[in-house]
Amino acid sequence: MSQRTPAYTGVVPPIVTPMDANGEIDTASLERLVDFLVDAGVTGIFALGSSGESAYLTEAQRDTVLDVIVGAVSGRVPVLAGCIETTTHRALDRARSAAARGADALVATAPFYTRTHPSEIDRHFREIAARTELPLLAYDVPVSVHSKLDADQLLALAADGVIAGVKDSSGDDPGFRDLVIGARELPEFSVLTGHEAVVDAMMLMGADGVVPGLGNVDPAGYVRLLQACEKGDWAAAREEQERLIRLFRIVRAVEPGTAGGSTAGVGAFKCALALLGVIDDATPALPMRPFTEVETGRVRAVLEEVGLL
Amino acid sequence: MSQRTPAYTGVVPPIVTPMDANGEIDTASLERLVDFLVDAGVTGIFALGSSGESAYLTEAQRDTVLDVIVGAVSGRVPVLAGCIETTTHRALDRARSAAARGADALVATAPFYTRTHPSEIDRHFREIAARTELPLLAYDVPVSVHSKLDADQLLALAADGVIAGVKDSSGDDPGFRDLVIGARELPEFSVLTGHEAVVDAMMLMGADGVVPGLGNVDPAGYVRLLQACEKGDWAAAREEQERLIRLFRIVRAVEPGTAGGSTAGVGAFKCALALLGVIDDATPALPMRPFTEVETGRVRAVLEEVGLL
Amino acid sequence: MSQRTPAYTGVVPPIVTPMDANGEIDTASLERLVDFLVDAGVTGIFALGSSGESAYLTEAQRDTVLDVIVGAVSGRVPVLAGCIETTTHRALDRARSAAARGADALVATAPFYTRTHPSEIDRHFREIAARTELPLLAYDVPVSVHSKLDADQLLALAADGVIAGVKDSSGDDPGFRDLVIGARELPEFSVLTGHEAVVDAMMLMGADGVVPGLGNVDPAGYVRLLQACEKGDWAAAREEQERLIRLFRIVRAVEPGTAGGSTAGVGAFKCALALLGVIDDATPALPMRPFTEVETGRVRAVLEEVGLL
Amino acid sequence: MSQRTPAYTGVVPPIVTPMDANGEIDTASLERLVDFLVDAGVTGIFALGSSGESAYLTEAQRDTVLDVIVGAVSGRVPVLAGCIETTTHRALDRARSAAARGADALVATAPFYTRTHPSEIDRHFREIAARTELPLLAYDVPVSVHSKLDADQLLALAADGVIAGVKDSSGDDPGFRDLVIGARELPEFSVLTGHEAVVDAMMLMGADGVVPGLGNVDPAGYVRLLQACEKGDWAAAREEQERLIRLFRIVRAVEPGTAGGSTAGVGAFKCALALLGVIDDATPALPMRPFTEVETGRVRAVLEEVGLL
Repeated sequence: MSQRTPAYTGVVPPIVTPMDANGEIDTASLERLVDFLVDAGVTGIFALGSSGESAYLTEAQRDTVLDVIVGAVSGRVPVLAGCIETTTHRALDRARSAAARGADALVATAPFYTRTHPSEIDRHFREIAARTELPLLAYDVPVSVHSKLDADQLLALAADGVIAGVKDSSGDDPGFRDLVIGARELPEFSVLTGHEAVVDAMMLMGADGVVPGLGNVDPAGYVRLLQACEKGDWAAAREEQERLIRLFRIVRAVEPGTAGGSTAGVGAFKCALALLGVIDDATPALPMRPFTEVETGRVRAVLEEVGLL
Repeated sequence: MSQRTPAYTGVVPPIVTPMDANGEIDTASLERLVDFLVDAGVTGIFALGSSGESAYLTEAQRDTVLDVIVGAVSGRVPVLAGCIETTTHRALDRARSAAARGADALVATAPFYTRTHPSEIDRHFREIAARTELPLLAYDVPVSVHSKLDADQLLALAADGVIAGVKDSSGDDPGFRDLVIGARELPEFSVLTGHEAVVDAMMLMGADGVVPGLGNVDPAGYVRLLQACEKGDWAAAREEQERLIRLFRIVRAVEPGTAGGSTAGVGAFKCALALLGVIDDATPALPMRPFTEVETGRVRAVLEEVGLL
Repeated sequence: MSQRTPAYTGVVPPIVTPMDANGEIDTASLERLVDFLVDAGVTGIFALGSSGESAYLTEAQRDTVLDVIVGAVSGRVPVLAGCIETTTHRALDRARSAAARGADALVATAPFYTRTHPSEIDRHFREIAARTELPLLAYDVPVSVHSKLDADQLLALAADGVIAGVKDSSGDDPGFRDLVIGARELPEFSVLTGHEAVVDAMMLMGADGVVPGLGNVDPAGYVRLLQACEKGDWAAAREEQERLIRLFRIVRAVEPGTAGGSTAGVGAFKCALALLGVIDDATPALPMRPFTEVETGRVRAVLEEVGLL
Repeated sequence: MSQRTPAYTGVVPPIVTPMDANGEIDTASLERLVDFLVDAGVTGIFALGSSGESAYLTEAQRDTVLDVIVGAVSGRVPVLAGCIETTTHRALDRARSAAARGADALVATAPFYTRTHPSEIDRHFREIAARTELPLLAYDVPVSVHSKLDADQLLALAADGVIAGVKDSSGDDPGFRDLVIGARELPEFSVLTGHEAVVDAMMLMGADGVVPGLGNVDPAGYVRLLQACEKGDWAAAREEQERLIRLFRIVRAVEPGTAGGSTAGVGAFKCALALLGVIDDATPALPMRPFTEVETGRVRAVLEEVGLL
């Protein structure tokens, strides 16, 4: 086994996008959030991901968000820019914008909306990489794009220099493990998990890092968790992970049967950040709705229980 | 039962988007295709739909396509413009562009990529309608957006003046029938089926018209089919429909296991149109691939069998 | 096109299985139900289907049910016996029992619980047919077995004499139409739809008959509907079909979010039959629950509205 | 946290069911397989599970299998008997047979084939437990039954004394972790994972044991793996787990596109056991097919690579 030197490791939160009550980007809050995360010790920022409401932002808003993040980060950590679009040329448009705005790497999913064959997913990543300069990471998120990236396919793309890493939000443990094992022959390839509730287990397998939506709310907790994992202190890691699982119950604050899973998740993250005073307003983008007072109370109770408030 | 006066009836093909071998929009071919359809007697053109490769076109390409179509149609039939985007504000950006370019109506799906609750789907359509002037049609396409529009919800949106019609590509017959029956109390509400293989059956139930992808290839056939239905000549309708089903086998021309369903469909439509001499090139957008010579031969054989070549 | 002489045509209700409050088979009610159906003019009885709660009955109960039905029918119409089991040898056990009890034909689904390849589905039907004497019908019910029977595969099985017919409850119209068209070369092959809400449309396409769960409640309505279709009186057919759709709203009587789809359907059929006085008790099998008084009231209201009470 | 004393821990393989070339139970091979497993140090035997081809065996074959296993085990370890049936009364029939044959515990899934609400799943387990004496374990296997058991629901059933444990084959890590954490207040409740490729990670979280299909082939490997986990020697655990992952590639021996997932899995286990000389014949039950010579060669190569041959 060669020595691994992956470019992306540690805690890379998929940063949320603060908005005011009218849905306009709140750039001051976004800058504060960047500092909140970087000060806590995160090793990268993933902008315009699912938690960043990329699918809800107009082209102009996406550009604004990226400008603000790159400016606020100011080179302290790498900025990975989501280029999450239905197909190749649309993702390339986002990739060119990201490069022009100073992002350090690109993150793309499989095509969606369309019915796509694995050979077309392969072509998608190869064409994006061939037409751009920045490193490209593959984002495996079947819950959103309704297809699964195959571990063998990803490892082949990595071996060919097409992708520099993967963010795995598939929940497919055997597939993730195949990536980790395969990556031992690919020293620079980064294998990141998106599974915020089992980070200790994924690190035990050999993951390089984590992209936790919940890391917006408690970046320091995830930094401690990874430090414990890196030291091999699995008991401490498990304790920290279980505290974060208690925190993760904020995603159950939404009144059942009244909003979708995206609202439950990103809505709770924004609600918590507003309660913590990091951002001014918890409003999510249309067609999502803001949390009610009752729901906000539930989030507050969880934050108090785990000691964040 | 009140007299029905729906705004959109008859044959409204979801027009494909011709490209050259480099993936650039072929405006001359697109203009010829518009004439081919209008001359055949279609009663509307649905631009930037799934068959129009909307999910594959950049923002600039979408604008170009709409400009060309509106110009070429020149008011002979209404142009419905797809505003198929992940969420509300993104769809609104497309809606504003469509209005500026002279489209006559808007077509939007449920949100996708995100996990969305029915109450959010409802808000999505209401917000789009509230912020635009043009009539809005709902496009029910679970195969692409992975949620189903509920008939009761659509009828409530229609009763409230939010939507002017629906294009149903769900394959859910009982739901479609609920729409047709409910529409009797909504005289101006258009109920269009996207099911090109069972148009006679849907017209028997009471549909107002059809949006057939295959109508790109044989618009005259669909016009004849609807005329037979409107006369109540169900034997003639069935004969024409079965001929179109034989034609529909072009979607099986693609080599099994080598390309996705979107390629099989839109790739075949474009291949057929190129063979018919209506458009210059059959190239689909990335990450799709062009048809091989063997696949093209299969399309040609079908066209010959049904008498189009 | 050769003259068609399919063995199974017309209205073949999937008869429900009356039980007492303890879940024991109520044979007297079952006999009355048989007479209710046969007297209304049905052309066959499908025993031990999904509506017959086959998946809820013990082996002994299944045998009892079949004995009672065959006895009560007494040769007036053919009895088709469901052999709905996870795999081949288990279905064969049911097939042998059905033959011994005097059934006229067998009905089998694709395997379920297991993950099964089309080639294994093919072997499943071929092995059942090879080891039994009675005619075998294929039952396409993806909602229960989670795989879809392919039209080409079914037509090949029919051409080889393996299956004598198909009951299609898939909702896949193009696939059903392929069956109907293909069956023109297979004069004895029966193509039956299970879609009680669009029978007129399916007959227009060329179906041979219908297996309607709702036909338990209003067999005379379905008999009239088919007669209108056979006469080509599509207006009368549509009127009868739409009346049956209003009746079909009994499946919405169950309180939302309190019971599964099987309870909503078969529970409503039994509730209606009890209200009509055909059977004594509406109790469904465990783990389903009986309808509440409120739910029963909703069923009664629908029965009154359509003139059955 | 109270001291945990779960009844079922360690390695509990879901024993396969050897057959001869005609599909008859090979009782001598089954007895040898029992000894092979018990001699390797397994702590229980799960009979009539998915790997045991329960869904493929007739009632008589299931009884035979259980008789042979209980006899061969002869009290050395507990025998858990699958009562995997579509609904409550059918599962109860199996439970009574299992009790009569001397099984030590019962294992039941959620209902399948039917469309079932969570409240009905709850009633299913409660009714089985109320009408039987043996301890009952819940088997969460969405890939087969197409519904997911909810962690909160399972913990409530455990707290009420309805279930004594769970076998989790869902692949839902956060849900599994909720079970593990919740089980700390339920000292006798057994939380077993079915995920043979990530056992170290599941044990790190706090699982009580594993039910590995692959444990049929290399029970000693899984015993070593659990011993390493129990000692907290995570490096040794990972090494053993990764060796077992290499062995697990036997499930890819089947020629792609020629057989279903059940054949790929259970077929490979039986093929390996025949190559190892533990059982006489690798034939799986209809409609599965035996492995070809080429496929058998691939299994042999893997066995050699990991040192089992």
